[in-house]
Amino acid sequence: MLYQVEVIISLKKGIRDPEAETIHKHLILRKGFDSIKSVRAGKYLLFSVDTDSPEKALEIVKTMCEKLRIYNPVIHDIEVRLSG
Amino acid sequence: MLYQVEVIISLKKGIRDPEAETIHKHLILRKGFDSIKSVRAGKYLLFSVDTDSPEKALEIVKTMCEKLRIYNPVIHDIEVRLSG
Repeated sequence: MLYQVEVIISLKKGIRDPEAETIHKHLILRKGFDSIKSVRAGKYLLFSVDTDSPEKALEIVKTMCEKLRIYNPVIHDIEVRLSG
Repeated sequence: MLYQVEVIISLKKGIRDPEAETIHKHLILRKGFDSIKSVRAGKYLLFSVDTDSPEKALEIVKTMCEKLRIYNPVIHDIEVRLSG
């Protein structure tokens, strides 16, 4: 069965996020969207996984992300979750 | 009250996604993760919105994304949802 697994890779809290800061200061605030208090940017990946259970799908993607160094554990946080 | 709103910007289905194809063919399949049948890549943004209700937070972010052209409606799909 095919399961959709989302992976979100973003900079760890405390690490400056220049891309997000630029979007926030030079685009959002300048255009008057003051209720937007902060912005964080990241990478989104969506995997279709052919396996037996949702738990197995999550496990496969987690293992793959670590083994293939799809993210840098020193500076990135990673979130792996079922989609939809 | 602060609400966390996620925005996921990805290429419309049917539009080739070279980044995702590269990750899939040259990294994932090569390393034997055959159960991964497809990969799509995209942009992830997380907004903290100070407003009265979750519905209002979603509305603000949707309006902002459209008005500020944070995505290109011709080639991108956008998903706006509450986080967590």
